[in-house]
Amino acid sequence: MNSAVEILSSDDQKFLVELLLKQQYALELISSEIYEIESGTKQTDNATYQKLVSLYDRIRFEL
Amino acid sequence: MNSAVEILSSDDQKFLVELLLKQQYALELISSEIYEIESGTKQTDNATYQKLVSLYDRIRFEL
Repeated sequence: MNSAVEILSSDDQKFLVELLLKQQYALELISSEIYEIESGTKQTDNATYQKLVSLYDRIRFEL
Repeated sequence: MNSAVEILSSDDQKFLVELLLKQQYALELISSEIYEIESGTKQTDNATYQKLVSLYDRIRFEL
């Protein structure tokens, strides 16, 4: 993944994630990425794919 | 903002923000929040509003 995120402090990152969760867009963001990988539109390594799937499940069932 | 984000590790948060930036949705997420605050649909404190505006500018002009 790109390093643009390095420009944002961890406080900024936390703030953005809170916003993402507050607007309930996190699941849509992750599921569209999973869909593009599974449909072959996007390539990624297995570790990133597994991370997406586990993050999706945790956000869906734990938050 | 809610504390759901506490459940996610900083690594998870960074991963989500990278995804947000990769899918170029960060600006839309922030601008819709700013719009709702400015139109009175949502209430927030001034510090959060200033943070949104400064994060929007940094993402738009620095990334």
